[in-house]
Amino acid sequence: MSQINIAVIVGSLRRDSLNRKLADALARLAPPDVAFHQVEIGDLPLYNQDDDGAQAPSVLRLKAEIAAAQGLLFLTPEYNRSIPGVLKNALDHASRPYGKSVWGGKPGGVLGISVGAMGTALAQQHLRNILAYLDVAVLAQPEAFLQAKEGFFDADGNIGEASRGFVQNWVDRFIAHVKRHI
Amino acid sequence: MSQINIAVIVGSLRRDSLNRKLADALARLAPPDVAFHQVEIGDLPLYNQDDDGAQAPSVLRLKAEIAAAQGLLFLTPEYNRSIPGVLKNALDHASRPYGKSVWGGKPGGVLGISVGAMGTALAQQHLRNILAYLDVAVLAQPEAFLQAKEGFFDADGNIGEASRGFVQNWVDRFIAHVKRHI
Amino acid sequence: MSQINIAVIVGSLRRDSLNRKLADALARLAPPDVAFHQVEIGDLPLYNQDDDGAQAPSVLRLKAEIAAAQGLLFLTPEYNRSIPGVLKNALDHASRPYGKSVWGGKPGGVLGISVGAMGTALAQQHLRNILAYLDVAVLAQPEAFLQAKEGFFDADGNIGEASRGFVQNWVDRFIAHVKRHI
Amino acid sequence: MSQINIAVIVGSLRRDSLNRKLADALARLAPPDVAFHQVEIGDLPLYNQDDDGAQAPSVLRLKAEIAAAQGLLFLTPEYNRSIPGVLKNALDHASRPYGKSVWGGKPGGVLGISVGAMGTALAQQHLRNILAYLDVAVLAQPEAFLQAKEGFFDADGNIGEASRGFVQNWVDRFIAHVKRHI
Repeated sequence: MSQINIAVIVGSLRRDSLNRKLADALARLAPPDVAFHQVEIGDLPLYNQDDDGAQAPSVLRLKAEIAAAQGLLFLTPEYNRSIPGVLKNALDHASRPYGKSVWGGKPGGVLGISVGAMGTALAQQHLRNILAYLDVAVLAQPEAFLQAKEGFFDADGNIGEASRGFVQNWVDRFIAHVKRHI
Repeated sequence: MSQINIAVIVGSLRRDSLNRKLADALARLAPPDVAFHQVEIGDLPLYNQDDDGAQAPSVLRLKAEIAAAQGLLFLTPEYNRSIPGVLKNALDHASRPYGKSVWGGKPGGVLGISVGAMGTALAQQHLRNILAYLDVAVLAQPEAFLQAKEGFFDADGNIGEASRGFVQNWVDRFIAHVKRHI
Repeated sequence: MSQINIAVIVGSLRRDSLNRKLADALARLAPPDVAFHQVEIGDLPLYNQDDDGAQAPSVLRLKAEIAAAQGLLFLTPEYNRSIPGVLKNALDHASRPYGKSVWGGKPGGVLGISVGAMGTALAQQHLRNILAYLDVAVLAQPEAFLQAKEGFFDADGNIGEASRGFVQNWVDRFIAHVKRHI
Repeated sequence: MSQINIAVIVGSLRRDSLNRKLADALARLAPPDVAFHQVEIGDLPLYNQDDDGAQAPSVLRLKAEIAAAQGLLFLTPEYNRSIPGVLKNALDHASRPYGKSVWGGKPGGVLGISVGAMGTALAQQHLRNILAYLDVAVLAQPEAFLQAKEGFFDADGNIGEASRGFVQNWVDRFIAHVKRHI
């Protein structure tokens, strides 16, 4: 039987991005029947509606990866009290052209880590508005506004002991949510 | 005496963008002591924090144009119930590196046109959250959620008769707001 | 076999409220196995945390009605670009005391009618943020930002011909969403 | 010369409300030419548009106090990721009837304290949307998302040493903002 394929979208391009580290760590918490695949969004052009008839190869690749996924996982930092432009750019690309969005109908989850938990909370509020419109069925609770404290990641890049229970529970709830929708 | 310089940021790259047409038309409604300059955002890279120490020439140009302006005018379409990724990308670039944002302390205005007025309204709600954080003093009222009805623009690209009074009043209020802050 | 019970919460106390008229009309579009019951929120006190240990009879009644429902339907007007205080007050009461919220885990739908469709759109954006926290699984699409045009209601208070198809489809999708969750 | 009168609206009715304690402490940080007056909102009825022609005495009192103020200070806790219904109810009352809002044109400030700073941050995001519509010129920066840590208040109810500098600076900036607008 084939694995459930979760497309993971990390909203930061920074090499040492906390949210990318979090995505790496989450992938190791998934059960054997679920695979997390990170989707590249750093090679996309800036979205321009004039290109809707001839989407760039990177856009077509992104759309194919989303279309092939059974669930969506968004990890967002906060830039200026909202989601990064780079993440919104990816959301815009894969929603186009009109009527050809690949987001619709999929189950999703939203979480994030930032230096203060407040940052990702504000970003996630905007992201939930956008995903509702894109017809992604986003897990409501538990919320996950993670704070990058000392020891959040251990030396091997796993979730440190103090937060592991919380994060494992979030992953379990997210996967149950995905399975209920497919 | 020198003119007041308003940097105009249009949130769409489309050649025939309604918001770009609106920006063109607004520029003609300004009094002689105020000049509106559109700022290019389509040549920016995707923001990546790793580049904060060596911002691209297009980013430095954007920041110089914002820094030189006495007021800011944002025209935003709605993409997926929020502002376009391309606009957020520009906001992110010019807010960085930490402590070197060029947005802070300037007076601003927000408006937009969309096929249904609801679209730009939802986008403007997010944009106001972001601009508050960037310390832009945004004109509160009047709001301008413009709807691209038949005849909104006349044959010469000016605001058509039915909407001219409303739009001229908005421009007058915006300019009074800018002058009160400088 | 018993009917599916949908608790309907109307965010306005006005006697001739458009959203109450809409709630009345929606109830007639439900199939025989689904019943819509409007929940009174106009007799609640203002929420005060000091009363958490001794909730008023009207609060206990509200909580019992929500607890007994298999689905939740929110009809919200817009007051000052958000949901009415009276609706938020009801949401707050039934979420308390801490750990005793009755909202969690239920499927829900959000719609509304206003003079301009933009009004309810802005209110619904805030309402969705709140309901996500309350762990209500809100139908993402279709959105319903209804505009109170001439003829929206017919002489008998039913949805007029021009909008009936759209509204019936919304109700069908909402009921399918509820059934998927119970 | 008369004092500048700031109307202070606390969004919680709880007797030992953290935000009320904060309001009390802030009042002592004001310079001699500025007076902070707390406005009662716990005696208001639930807003009902049918009463617009005959507003209750408590509503008329609230409106008179707001009308007499030169500046507005909002202290909001977070209830369910937004502002309390009781605060929204007060905002709704004093905005009515149509054309008779008393909020418009006044300078304002928004801050709040909660157990996690994230709570008040999410509430303030909604409050800023509402106040923009009500034409309140809200101070953009500095933000104040205060966290109720041990020692935030000292034994006399003043701001404790660790936070005093931050809060005094916020008050100074807020008062400068009010003075610039009157």
